[in-house]
Amino acid sequence: MIRAGIIGATGYAGGELVRLLLGHRETEIVWYGSRSYVGEAYASIYQNMFQLVEAECLDDNMEELAAKADVIFTATPQGLCASLIKEEILRNTKVIDLSADFRLKDVKIYEEWYKLKHQAPEYLDEAVYGLCEINREQVREARLVANPGCYPTCSILSLYPLLTEGLADSSTVIIDAKSGTSGAGRGAKTDNLFCEVNENIKAYGVASHRHTPEIEEQLSYAAGEPVTLTFTPHLVPMNRGILVTAYASIANRKITEEEIREIYRKYYDSEFFVRLLPQGVCPQTKWVEGSNFVDVNVKLDPRTGRVIVMGAMDNLVKGAAGQAVQNMNLMFGLEERTGLMQAPMFP
Amino acid sequence: MIRAGIIGATGYAGGELVRLLLGHRETEIVWYGSRSYVGEAYASIYQNMFQLVEAECLDDNMEELAAKADVIFTATPQGLCASLIKEEILRNTKVIDLSADFRLKDVKIYEEWYKLKHQAPEYLDEAVYGLCEINREQVREARLVANPGCYPTCSILSLYPLLTEGLADSSTVIIDAKSGTSGAGRGAKTDNLFCEVNENIKAYGVASHRHTPEIEEQLSYAAGEPVTLTFTPHLVPMNRGILVTAYASIANRKITEEEIREIYRKYYDSEFFVRLLPQGVCPQTKWVEGSNFVDVNVKLDPRTGRVIVMGAMDNLVKGAAGQAVQNMNLMFGLEERTGLMQAPMFP
Amino acid sequence: MIRAGIIGATGYAGGELVRLLLGHRETEIVWYGSRSYVGEAYASIYQNMFQLVEAECLDDNMEELAAKADVIFTATPQGLCASLIKEEILRNTKVIDLSADFRLKDVKIYEEWYKLKHQAPEYLDEAVYGLCEINREQVREARLVANPGCYPTCSILSLYPLLTEGLADSSTVIIDAKSGTSGAGRGAKTDNLFCEVNENIKAYGVASHRHTPEIEEQLSYAAGEPVTLTFTPHLVPMNRGILVTAYASIANRKITEEEIREIYRKYYDSEFFVRLLPQGVCPQTKWVEGSNFVDVNVKLDPRTGRVIVMGAMDNLVKGAAGQAVQNMNLMFGLEERTGLMQAPMFP
Amino acid sequence: MIRAGIIGATGYAGGELVRLLLGHRETEIVWYGSRSYVGEAYASIYQNMFQLVEAECLDDNMEELAAKADVIFTATPQGLCASLIKEEILRNTKVIDLSADFRLKDVKIYEEWYKLKHQAPEYLDEAVYGLCEINREQVREARLVANPGCYPTCSILSLYPLLTEGLADSSTVIIDAKSGTSGAGRGAKTDNLFCEVNENIKAYGVASHRHTPEIEEQLSYAAGEPVTLTFTPHLVPMNRGILVTAYASIANRKITEEEIREIYRKYYDSEFFVRLLPQGVCPQTKWVEGSNFVDVNVKLDPRTGRVIVMGAMDNLVKGAAGQAVQNMNLMFGLEERTGLMQAPMFP
Repeated sequence: MIRAGIIGATGYAGGELVRLLLGHRETEIVWYGSRSYVGEAYASIYQNMFQLVEAECLDDNMEELAAKADVIFTATPQGLCASLIKEEILRNTKVIDLSADFRLKDVKIYEEWYKLKHQAPEYLDEAVYGLCEINREQVREARLVANPGCYPTCSILSLYPLLTEGLADSSTVIIDAKSGTSGAGRGAKTDNLFCEVNENIKAYGVASHRHTPEIEEQLSYAAGEPVTLTFTPHLVPMNRGILVTAYASIANRKITEEEIREIYRKYYDSEFFVRLLPQGVCPQTKWVEGSNFVDVNVKLDPRTGRVIVMGAMDNLVKGAAGQAVQNMNLMFGLEERTGLMQAPMFP
Repeated sequence: MIRAGIIGATGYAGGELVRLLLGHRETEIVWYGSRSYVGEAYASIYQNMFQLVEAECLDDNMEELAAKADVIFTATPQGLCASLIKEEILRNTKVIDLSADFRLKDVKIYEEWYKLKHQAPEYLDEAVYGLCEINREQVREARLVANPGCYPTCSILSLYPLLTEGLADSSTVIIDAKSGTSGAGRGAKTDNLFCEVNENIKAYGVASHRHTPEIEEQLSYAAGEPVTLTFTPHLVPMNRGILVTAYASIANRKITEEEIREIYRKYYDSEFFVRLLPQGVCPQTKWVEGSNFVDVNVKLDPRTGRVIVMGAMDNLVKGAAGQAVQNMNLMFGLEERTGLMQAPMFP
Repeated sequence: MIRAGIIGATGYAGGELVRLLLGHRETEIVWYGSRSYVGEAYASIYQNMFQLVEAECLDDNMEELAAKADVIFTATPQGLCASLIKEEILRNTKVIDLSADFRLKDVKIYEEWYKLKHQAPEYLDEAVYGLCEINREQVREARLVANPGCYPTCSILSLYPLLTEGLADSSTVIIDAKSGTSGAGRGAKTDNLFCEVNENIKAYGVASHRHTPEIEEQLSYAAGEPVTLTFTPHLVPMNRGILVTAYASIANRKITEEEIREIYRKYYDSEFFVRLLPQGVCPQTKWVEGSNFVDVNVKLDPRTGRVIVMGAMDNLVKGAAGQAVQNMNLMFGLEERTGLMQAPMFP
Repeated sequence: MIRAGIIGATGYAGGELVRLLLGHRETEIVWYGSRSYVGEAYASIYQNMFQLVEAECLDDNMEELAAKADVIFTATPQGLCASLIKEEILRNTKVIDLSADFRLKDVKIYEEWYKLKHQAPEYLDEAVYGLCEINREQVREARLVANPGCYPTCSILSLYPLLTEGLADSSTVIIDAKSGTSGAGRGAKTDNLFCEVNENIKAYGVASHRHTPEIEEQLSYAAGEPVTLTFTPHLVPMNRGILVTAYASIANRKITEEEIREIYRKYYDSEFFVRLLPQGVCPQTKWVEGSNFVDVNVKLDPRTGRVIVMGAMDNLVKGAAGQAVQNMNLMFGLEERTGLMQAPMFP
């Protein structure tokens, strides 16, 4: 049994980790960390876990935890993981960080977009960007995995074949993304009250959202050239789900939609968690809810010479906790899908 | 492996059966029946099942199915199962009927409330009312199980200890129930359009809903006397979930809330799927979503001498497909929880 | 022009007052009070008012306001209005208090249910309970109106004819109420976050909600005898609307539904804002959204000898700001419907 | 009094017309046309209108209606208005068509995108595209107004200053639009059921939506050159509201956001119904709900040289019925805002 500790177990991503790890037959949760609720029964915070989780919330003691756990998940605000990580921890345990601390290789970009001084830049090189479909082999060997952001996961997987194969002009990429409200976290803010979000849609973080450089960095690796793009997230009145609608001008106007689909098939036919939908079927977030799937599709618009790429996933699963479990499976030599075989729930 | 056939696999309850049986390690689905979609890929109707279910929808041929399947689930409109059932089918296979055809022992009451002539009254005696927590032993031996209705499941489990123990005056029982919209089915009706249901709540079927006699019959068995009660369902703008708020005058005004809770514990401490919440905690439908749990609690109001009993469950799981799987497990000698261990999903 | 001041203009009820008074041709808002946002443009808090309201938020100075305004609305937490009211204010202006401070005539009951010491019990006698349909004449003469609570408004108007006419046994009254989330206010609490409320329903304040004694007091006046009842509120995933489903045993089992309806017609045919729906039509909150209407109906259940009374209204309009405007109209000798003629918005 | 007739009064846009015209002091509705409900009380279909509308639904007899009404609104499927329009009707009455029949000047484009033969191409020249902010003077003189589509209204008003002034490269325009579900109409379709739309978001009509040529035609007039663009609509789980997020590369990379805003101010400062929000404030659909406002804003992204333009409005008001009333006001010489002064409703 893998002994897993969670720091930040009472946020939405942390709660989802608990849900998934309870159903993972090779794992046992040994630490429910939550600074806000130390000493309270975990199931009194997440009542869904009543009679399923007996443990109490513990403080965030990473050193003590490193001695007890084979893997630590940090589902915490930016900066926390970087402030705690050190060699003696990584010698004892593996770390999967769900925050942004180790996603960007360039510390200056991190500090500029996150307005934080990075506390452990010496680990940026070692950290593996844990998008399993792309970095599977490095993840297997990693001690420290930077679990990708929710928007980046959906955006990158949607666009990866297109940019890797040079099918589109990388300077024309625009990503219009829509997210359910769990992405905003469980903090008590007026903006996230039911009455403010319900019956409403808005863009936010326009031209300034922190996931932009993460998407750009990864797509630059794919394209083999620096990619600068426009990324606009929107808040949608639903709990879960991210939909990405991405636009790019195709490099060669003679290519057909079927040819693009053929290339996507090449990349994703052997990927269980990425499903290329049948031609003409648009991804819907509800069809992947609760699961680790990303549904993608492409539509070529011959009138404008643009390709529209769509991707849908559950932001808390493939966009956070599910991907973290997928990374854990790889890091411990388990079958990658272990504990992640739930079919999506509909309706 | 149990070979399972589903008639009515493209309704919401049928779809949920597919989801649960896909995760059930002892079962294989051999028949996706759907009159409306014969010949179409099941996953083209329920796109969440893309790449998980390869099968096509088949017509509702119960005899052919009886030869192929160890168990048949009928998730169909009232009247269909009764019109198809016969000895040669029950000799070959077990039947779990999710419709109301075999829930009421009195054929006259069935015909009065359902406005249908019963096609197989000769099986009413044999059919077992499949509320496992109450009829567990009979279910184990049954060939034909009447899977309880959604409202009845939640209502009966909420009130069962109270009435069995004579703690309340059975003539004072009022059940005010609230259901998510999946309970209304997948038929294309104006009343169930998003814009008609969203931002809205209403009562319906007031003093006339068909689940009333089913609740009354079962609670009469519990009370040991005929129970006539008021049942009012409401439609709530959410996909899943039933909340029951039931009222009754206590028989003995000296009883305390803790004493009532103690009695509930006696009934439910050993029942995995019924969770008596801590004192003062009200059940919420979201805390059981996607799971087979029923969360219950009681509140005594000394001012009025009434007890308020609350129950919450997922109408498609414990209220339909999950309970059907629980029944199947019992009928085939499996551990009752097999395939039903999913933790509720929150948020 | 009536000069109106609002204390608590940035809560949901305060915001609704602004919306309604902007469309009221005889009124001008002279004070947008909001302790939390002093000095900020009102329209920066409620962006819907952009270019419609130029004013800034002011502090809650009731004396200064009394000198400037003909009427003051206090849409504030319990206790505030009582702490500010005094003779020199009431000599200069009229006060409509949307909090509970002056709703209960018995100061002990107030202090027991609200856990507050009442700061101005000497005004309890003078204060008029502003349910216009019942106390119209007293409201016309009032200096201080206690604007009814949202649940009480809907509950009392639904049950008033029944209890006034002695049609039901007043000891059997049970009120099961359902409210949209704006009733919980605009405070930033985890429980009211979108992800906690959405796809969820729960009871709260069971056997202990503060609106209970208010409903009891008013229905006791109606019944001519003390009424003790059960009141259970529920939180529903929608912004606006209250639905009341009330139960009572009829006093005379020979009465017909049509006879009860006839009595309701006697009370409400001349009341513009109370609509008795056609027989068999259940009230829906969506059908009154944004308007000052209360839709009511009754259903007699001969099987149980109970009558089920249903009422639906918009909690922010007839349940708060609309009723306050209706009271203002009466207090200033205007036609009662002035500024309240908006048809409900659907969908 | 203007006597108004509505054909298609029981669709969502027709229902909204009824709501707005009831509050319009210069108008009287003389005809509630609805093929589906002939002879039924209008208020039995739209129960919100109970006791506000006494009339019954009538058949769609345009000739009889032309004799009785000063203006006819056709809120009907594409093709109907064109099939009924003729000189003797336009001699007697004015027509405001809420369908697409007269929006596109080029009959071939209409027939290609709508797959319909146009029945009255001879009126295409005369018909005025009723986007009041742009074609105000022509609307005043018109007998036949083509009321713009919902997406086009929001898209065009958002981009009009940008393209008219040549600030952006018109070949780079991408419009990513999000709509509430009332835009899909009141027809009973499985896709629009509550459970299918709720907790879900999807794109639809990708690269093929019929509003594309309408937007292109109008923006081509603005730009003074043919504009071909990408338009992607999405379905959002809310009743009302359209949000447009549009992207374009700026023509001159030296321009500042403030300069672009200054140009928008030049166009919209005198337009009551178009509100340019303060810098940095993103439009939200909830802030305009129930009103005729369009809230717009721009954000310049210097990293990519793109401008992101956002627009939000209520699809049933400014996107349909409100704009139709605005057109009527102009056609009858009334103040343009008559009956349209409702403040948005929040929450």
